[in-house]
Amino acid sequence: MSIQVAINGYGTIGKRVADAVTLQPDMELVGVAKTSPNHEAELAVEKGYPLYAAVEERIELFEDAGIDLAGTVEELVSAADIVVDATPSGIGAENKSMYDDLDTPALYQGGEDADLVDTSFNARGNFEAAEGADHVRVVSCNTTGLSRLLAPLEEEYGIEKARVTLVRRGGDPAQSGRGPINDILPNPVSLPSHHGPDVNTIFPDIDIDTLGLKVPATLMHTHSVNVTLESTPTADEVRDVLDEQRRTFLIPEEHDIDGAGKLKEFAMDRGRPRADIWENCIWSESASMEGNDLYLFQAIHQESDVVPENVDAIRAVLSTADASDSIVRTNEAMGVGF
Amino acid sequence: MSIQVAINGYGTIGKRVADAVTLQPDMELVGVAKTSPNHEAELAVEKGYPLYAAVEERIELFEDAGIDLAGTVEELVSAADIVVDATPSGIGAENKSMYDDLDTPALYQGGEDADLVDTSFNARGNFEAAEGADHVRVVSCNTTGLSRLLAPLEEEYGIEKARVTLVRRGGDPAQSGRGPINDILPNPVSLPSHHGPDVNTIFPDIDIDTLGLKVPATLMHTHSVNVTLESTPTADEVRDVLDEQRRTFLIPEEHDIDGAGKLKEFAMDRGRPRADIWENCIWSESASMEGNDLYLFQAIHQESDVVPENVDAIRAVLSTADASDSIVRTNEAMGVGF
Amino acid sequence: MSIQVAINGYGTIGKRVADAVTLQPDMELVGVAKTSPNHEAELAVEKGYPLYAAVEERIELFEDAGIDLAGTVEELVSAADIVVDATPSGIGAENKSMYDDLDTPALYQGGEDADLVDTSFNARGNFEAAEGADHVRVVSCNTTGLSRLLAPLEEEYGIEKARVTLVRRGGDPAQSGRGPINDILPNPVSLPSHHGPDVNTIFPDIDIDTLGLKVPATLMHTHSVNVTLESTPTADEVRDVLDEQRRTFLIPEEHDIDGAGKLKEFAMDRGRPRADIWENCIWSESASMEGNDLYLFQAIHQESDVVPENVDAIRAVLSTADASDSIVRTNEAMGVGF
Amino acid sequence: MSIQVAINGYGTIGKRVADAVTLQPDMELVGVAKTSPNHEAELAVEKGYPLYAAVEERIELFEDAGIDLAGTVEELVSAADIVVDATPSGIGAENKSMYDDLDTPALYQGGEDADLVDTSFNARGNFEAAEGADHVRVVSCNTTGLSRLLAPLEEEYGIEKARVTLVRRGGDPAQSGRGPINDILPNPVSLPSHHGPDVNTIFPDIDIDTLGLKVPATLMHTHSVNVTLESTPTADEVRDVLDEQRRTFLIPEEHDIDGAGKLKEFAMDRGRPRADIWENCIWSESASMEGNDLYLFQAIHQESDVVPENVDAIRAVLSTADASDSIVRTNEAMGVGF
Repeated sequence: MSIQVAINGYGTIGKRVADAVTLQPDMELVGVAKTSPNHEAELAVEKGYPLYAAVEERIELFEDAGIDLAGTVEELVSAADIVVDATPSGIGAENKSMYDDLDTPALYQGGEDADLVDTSFNARGNFEAAEGADHVRVVSCNTTGLSRLLAPLEEEYGIEKARVTLVRRGGDPAQSGRGPINDILPNPVSLPSHHGPDVNTIFPDIDIDTLGLKVPATLMHTHSVNVTLESTPTADEVRDVLDEQRRTFLIPEEHDIDGAGKLKEFAMDRGRPRADIWENCIWSESASMEGNDLYLFQAIHQESDVVPENVDAIRAVLSTADASDSIVRTNEAMGVGF
Repeated sequence: MSIQVAINGYGTIGKRVADAVTLQPDMELVGVAKTSPNHEAELAVEKGYPLYAAVEERIELFEDAGIDLAGTVEELVSAADIVVDATPSGIGAENKSMYDDLDTPALYQGGEDADLVDTSFNARGNFEAAEGADHVRVVSCNTTGLSRLLAPLEEEYGIEKARVTLVRRGGDPAQSGRGPINDILPNPVSLPSHHGPDVNTIFPDIDIDTLGLKVPATLMHTHSVNVTLESTPTADEVRDVLDEQRRTFLIPEEHDIDGAGKLKEFAMDRGRPRADIWENCIWSESASMEGNDLYLFQAIHQESDVVPENVDAIRAVLSTADASDSIVRTNEAMGVGF
Repeated sequence: MSIQVAINGYGTIGKRVADAVTLQPDMELVGVAKTSPNHEAELAVEKGYPLYAAVEERIELFEDAGIDLAGTVEELVSAADIVVDATPSGIGAENKSMYDDLDTPALYQGGEDADLVDTSFNARGNFEAAEGADHVRVVSCNTTGLSRLLAPLEEEYGIEKARVTLVRRGGDPAQSGRGPINDILPNPVSLPSHHGPDVNTIFPDIDIDTLGLKVPATLMHTHSVNVTLESTPTADEVRDVLDEQRRTFLIPEEHDIDGAGKLKEFAMDRGRPRADIWENCIWSESASMEGNDLYLFQAIHQESDVVPENVDAIRAVLSTADASDSIVRTNEAMGVGF
Repeated sequence: MSIQVAINGYGTIGKRVADAVTLQPDMELVGVAKTSPNHEAELAVEKGYPLYAAVEERIELFEDAGIDLAGTVEELVSAADIVVDATPSGIGAENKSMYDDLDTPALYQGGEDADLVDTSFNARGNFEAAEGADHVRVVSCNTTGLSRLLAPLEEEYGIEKARVTLVRRGGDPAQSGRGPINDILPNPVSLPSHHGPDVNTIFPDIDIDTLGLKVPATLMHTHSVNVTLESTPTADEVRDVLDEQRRTFLIPEEHDIDGAGKLKEFAMDRGRPRADIWENCIWSESASMEGNDLYLFQAIHQESDVVPENVDAIRAVLSTADASDSIVRTNEAMGVGF
């Protein structure tokens, strides 16, 4: 019988994970839970996803809006083998005891603290760590992007030290209240930033320092990456290693893709749902070696790169596949890989 | 036999029209012509669209890139019943004599001069004017948006005068070289702007003055509209009239859509290809009457609102359907209408 | 003896009014009140402006920061002939009873409600209305800009109706938390906007409808203006009338100034403090007549255009000068007029 | 007798250097040369700077515009002890033979090739190298900012390797035609960028790799800096060393300055002409050590940080002061240092 998946929260991440789960032959979406009957609730209905009330007191609001509910979030979780918590940062922590009470293993998103869970998760980095765990955190978009990059470099060449500047988008395209408008903000100002320690939740032994800035852009984050390797491959050799990875896309030089705008157009031309780019996008031309220092730029789609990771984490927790097998199945079902 | 359609130019407009034509049961895409073998040429190949060389001297470049060509643009045009010229502004004018020589009727885009053609075209505004014409110009995104809005208002209430401020996006999302970054530019500075006279190519008798500005945004244009009507309907009556139109979307107040970012997210959630929004998006809440002055805001997706118009123009020129019939067929085949 | 002026609030407006008051031969700055000992408090000290604590409980914070205080805001107000309240929106209303208790007339800024005061104020529009008033509101930057424009048009030609679209900056240059980043937001969505009624606090009889939008720019607001006049002057005649005004700057066509960026550069080149532009900046080329419809674009510097108005309001309330005399004196002392 | 200085080019850099030269007690501005009679030409006239025609054939245009000329650029250069070439990138190279013919030493800006000149120049880095040289290039804003930072670190601690990501503004505030609007562009894509080699024109022996990106901001560049030192000072010790420098400003944590917007406001509040910030602005809080890796963020004002360097280069070339003496004199005359 297929894995029964509940999704609590149907916003930026939740709606994407719901669609991705639906595409997996070995999974079935039990339903999604929402707090309020807005147009995303209507979307769930349009898609035929059973809709549950995340907050009992608000059931009436759904009724007033003429939206039929399948039940409460507790009923949703009870009916599932696993719940993906895709609620806003901090709400996952509040939900943890409910999942425990209902004896259902749970996945959380990167906005929750690493301390909340048994293990943090990245499919390429530490798939096995999640096997049988009750509480697993799929790391944030940026940490996911770094993990996918560092894992093969560590395996092939050894990493002496990584230093990464994350030039982060100020907000998502629909977050009209977020700034900055015309500024470049060191963020956080105190260094190194929390992104490095977050990478260490996946790779405890990699020496990494990170710096973050926020700029007036909405489409993708961009990482300026330096990795001092323990050996000295050529840039072409590094490109080959990265090219073999399943969730990295080496942007060919001849595509004349100069930034996130053209990357998203490329993705939309290929029919990607919601213009999503699940892959790390590494500028092939940028990969270069100076001594044993590797440099490159990669762009990360903050709204979607964690989606295939959530799917893999479901299989990891329930031990229904190993890393390589799960990644291949997820990729095929979703169409990951350009 | 279905209408054989050639498309010359496979960029922002051309690639969308190609997809839309492919979806029409009464049309068949003969092929698309391109000047250079870039990743959009690869896209045409991936989609199975026969690819023709727009410039004979460049055939070699395609060969070097390993891209098979089906022939030259002249061969493409010869094989078609009609050609949609989707080349950059001004190139259409250069192509006109070729279409004449090959005796193939041609559609041009809004970047060409109105003088180039027998008639300008908007499906809702003046479908019949294009019947049997050799050269027809589908008006620009902004003029299309205004025509769709003004047509029903003129018919229902009579228009005494229209005054519209067009707050235009500085460039498309992938046009990274365009500004401004942090400015609001009167553009053009001299008033009224050319948009009003362009509306008059569709409705010669409507009294309209327009003003344009350019701002640092990429997603959609936004129109601040005033129409002094010849009668005094209530705002609700106007809303009802606009709601009945086939290519306008009255944004419901409860959707909490505050701008183009949320509009595009709404469209992507509904599975729109390339996040396209073919409809005028009118904020329902904004529609209001002061005396006989109607005010409202509408957002216009510059990359796609002319696509269904191009499809209709094909039928208009070849007299294979009347306006209402064509609009319905185009909408159904493409999925126009939220 | 010169007019003793207190300023409560030393942020964007307060610090500019303080400098402007200091430049007036007939005024003396008693001091400025602040809530916290930040770097603007240090600025007041550097400039030699006596600093008062706006909140008694926070005196200790100033002491901790090593900043000497001259007293409490009550002492400041008591020592003054008039107080300029330049606190954030809504705080002015809270301060009103204190000013009443201390029997000191007060000026408020445009963020307060019109109902709070005896009269709203614009020097060119209704100087006399403030004479002898206890509570006067200097209208907002946008309303100030509109009042300066409409006053001479009403006097010279009569205004049948004004329709204005305000393309507003999302935030000031230092307000890094404000958006939108890449959007054009109808704001408010419901029409007409509050700006029209605010103009009516100065000119009760002018028929005006306004629409507002917010865009990703920080430097200045830009108004797209239509005024249907009661007569039909030529555009040149209108230009002449506007050119005679003391606080409007007709941007000469040959200056090639295309937006707020070049306007600010122009102002900085001329040594303006803080790059301030106190004048309405009207694109000369844009002024045009279609029938009896006047169209033009003007840019308004949101941080500074009300500063000379505050200075004039001081003289108006205390009846120490008439409108024309005060405006000339303020302009000369500050250097208003390019 | 004071040093007679000619300035060829009166745009962003030229107009600032002209003002700075005028403030130096040991210098006299002979005049400035311009190619066309625009509003910056008027500015020179308003400031009383003798104006010369940079191109002989265009003298008539100045006459038509009613602007009096003092002569040709050749006459200007002949009358000077030194010429500061502040023309657009590439024009300086064209002017070189003229300066040679007139036997006048020349300073060029960072847009010219390093090969053009006898030496590149940074006052803190290699003042002495310019003594007696005929052709000297003042390095670009970014290289100036890096040189000021690296010089004291190299002297105090030794630099093993520097790795810097330059998050660059897309254009200056008045450059309304420049983008990107909503993107983060690796620029250049191929790594390392040219900034590192440019630093090596000042410090041939420092091992430095740089990466550049372009973002939608206009106010300042921001550098994300890593310097692996040869020793391991504490962060406080590094702060002290940087604080002692004459052209670095350590932004105090309590100032709550989060980016370039607030930095510029800080500068404007202190009366800086044109809101200029001549100093490297280093976030004090950001300076931190991990092992022997120093990290910090600094902001660089692209329009003005090279201005005091140009002044110093004049003295260096003519050997009228040593580095320390010149820097102090320039700073005092201009008011460098917050």
